[in-house]
Amino acid sequence: MKALIIGDNNQLNFIDKEIPKPKENEVLVKITAVALNHRDQFIREGKYPGINPGTILGSDACGTVMEIGEQVDAVWKDKEVLINPNIDWGENPKVQSSQYHILGTPSDGLFCEYVTIDTKKIAEKPAHLSAEGGAALPLGGMTAFRALFHHGNCKKNENVLISGVGGGVAQFAFQFALAKGANVYVTSSDETKRTKSIELGAKEAFNYKDEDWVKKAKQASGGFNLVIDSAAGDGINDLIKLMKPAGRIVFYGATQGKPQNLDVHRMFWNQITLQGSTMANDDEFKAMITYVKKNRIEPIIDSVRPFEEIVEAFDKMKEGKQFGKLVAKF
Amino acid sequence: MKALIIGDNNQLNFIDKEIPKPKENEVLVKITAVALNHRDQFIREGKYPGINPGTILGSDACGTVMEIGEQVDAVWKDKEVLINPNIDWGENPKVQSSQYHILGTPSDGLFCEYVTIDTKKIAEKPAHLSAEGGAALPLGGMTAFRALFHHGNCKKNENVLISGVGGGVAQFAFQFALAKGANVYVTSSDETKRTKSIELGAKEAFNYKDEDWVKKAKQASGGFNLVIDSAAGDGINDLIKLMKPAGRIVFYGATQGKPQNLDVHRMFWNQITLQGSTMANDDEFKAMITYVKKNRIEPIIDSVRPFEEIVEAFDKMKEGKQFGKLVAKF
Repeated sequence: MKALIIGDNNQLNFIDKEIPKPKENEVLVKITAVALNHRDQFIREGKYPGINPGTILGSDACGTVMEIGEQVDAVWKDKEVLINPNIDWGENPKVQSSQYHILGTPSDGLFCEYVTIDTKKIAEKPAHLSAEGGAALPLGGMTAFRALFHHGNCKKNENVLISGVGGGVAQFAFQFALAKGANVYVTSSDETKRTKSIELGAKEAFNYKDEDWVKKAKQASGGFNLVIDSAAGDGINDLIKLMKPAGRIVFYGATQGKPQNLDVHRMFWNQITLQGSTMANDDEFKAMITYVKKNRIEPIIDSVRPFEEIVEAFDKMKEGKQFGKLVAKF
Repeated sequence: MKALIIGDNNQLNFIDKEIPKPKENEVLVKITAVALNHRDQFIREGKYPGINPGTILGSDACGTVMEIGEQVDAVWKDKEVLINPNIDWGENPKVQSSQYHILGTPSDGLFCEYVTIDTKKIAEKPAHLSAEGGAALPLGGMTAFRALFHHGNCKKNENVLISGVGGGVAQFAFQFALAKGANVYVTSSDETKRTKSIELGAKEAFNYKDEDWVKKAKQASGGFNLVIDSAAGDGINDLIKLMKPAGRIVFYGATQGKPQNLDVHRMFWNQITLQGSTMANDDEFKAMITYVKKNRIEPIIDSVRPFEEIVEAFDKMKEGKQFGKLVAKF
């Protein structure tokens, strides 16, 4: 079978590997579509801990169960499934164990034709989704679901800001918050992305490079109950200013680095929460898929290309011009 | 009646005033003991917003109901009561209204012989407490109760760190966490305060001026589930290092100012909460007193002096050498 690995010197290489055999409790999945995450490109750039040359990349995939191992319920045979990329989250639903990592580095991932996987780590693809839509969902959907609901406690009619709506996780947070009935606002420095967000249901879209975006956002919204962010940096102080009292800022990344002069005085007086968040637990994988199914959410897809051309998708990810997930198909 | 006001040029002055009359739903309380908070000394130093020369200072008092106004249940007559210093918290239990302030600035406070107050704002003094113990309780107890329970969700057997245990709120947080059955650790730069905390039940007491206190605290505790802090400043990053995954840092002040280089990466990976907290709502005033009664908690009192000598208590507060509340008695 064909597989994409991270090679020596962080080159992306296609290799041929033997098709694996399902062990007890495992199924063999023929992968039909995969999706990229920033993580994949970061690994290519050497910006990730634990990079292991020879590892098959990829955390997101949809596929069809071809073969079942011992002890596996026959009902799984021929099912279209999504794969939970978590490895060793552990027993505590509140936080991952120290062994926790995800498929695609340092363990082999999903950018390949076949994979064997424990049935605990698969869920049936929602019927309203194509293979491409299903592949787009797991990693970004899980991260957004946890930030928005477990930590953010997003509620109907609340004012919610999704910063940097161009990002994969941010888009799921955006769609999930809309489905919840929140008043959803977004930021992006890209005009096309702002326009598309409004078309999809955002109340307003702000350009965080505008000097007066904070003032505009305050006027438009009256303040936010919840912000979902992955930038951090000094911009956190703008977000603190934009919060309603008792507001929650949940962040799952820090692309703008460490904040200076954190406005702790406003934080304690207004009882603001600054909450770190990361990937989701195994129960949340299933809960997120149920939520997508119930609300018939369609992941936003930027483009689909043949698996043979997946390196172009990495290049596009690096440029950052996509709006929606970058998908490759077998 | 005698009263202590903040005069022109922030001088503390005793004045004579007429004894007020209780209106509908009010009682007249003859004050038996009052207690100082840092806030009172900060007002004297001009370090507080809304200072209004001529205002009677003081947020904490215990007294006896002498007279009842119209519509007041006769059961209150002669009761020893504690006074809730909140004014206009508002309807939302999660956060104070924009009108919120507390007795003693800019509104007249409790450093006087008599006060009229709505019965909604009084609670019976727990029988196990003296007037001095009762007076010590409201402002500090409420702030600690909210930080520890509403925001901190303090649970039995959790590892809890109370930083700067010399402070009034910190001491209540310390005692409330002990009563909950938590493993309580403290910090103080003062050896006497560290020793006293150990005598009162702290597992260990660390000197935050020791270069290796973070290492020592990590070794001794294995990490904290909850920290109650009022310093903020760059020390927040030490606290973030000391948290167990999914740990909560709740802060109700920022005496060390704004943190630089906030360690957001560790925060999101370990799903750490940084939570601002301030005073408590009116229901928490009552819940806190019930908790003190049920657990027979004795506020730590540094010293008691006659009301005529209360200015000495302000001076001692400024020095910061006290361990426990500074109380004055009529």
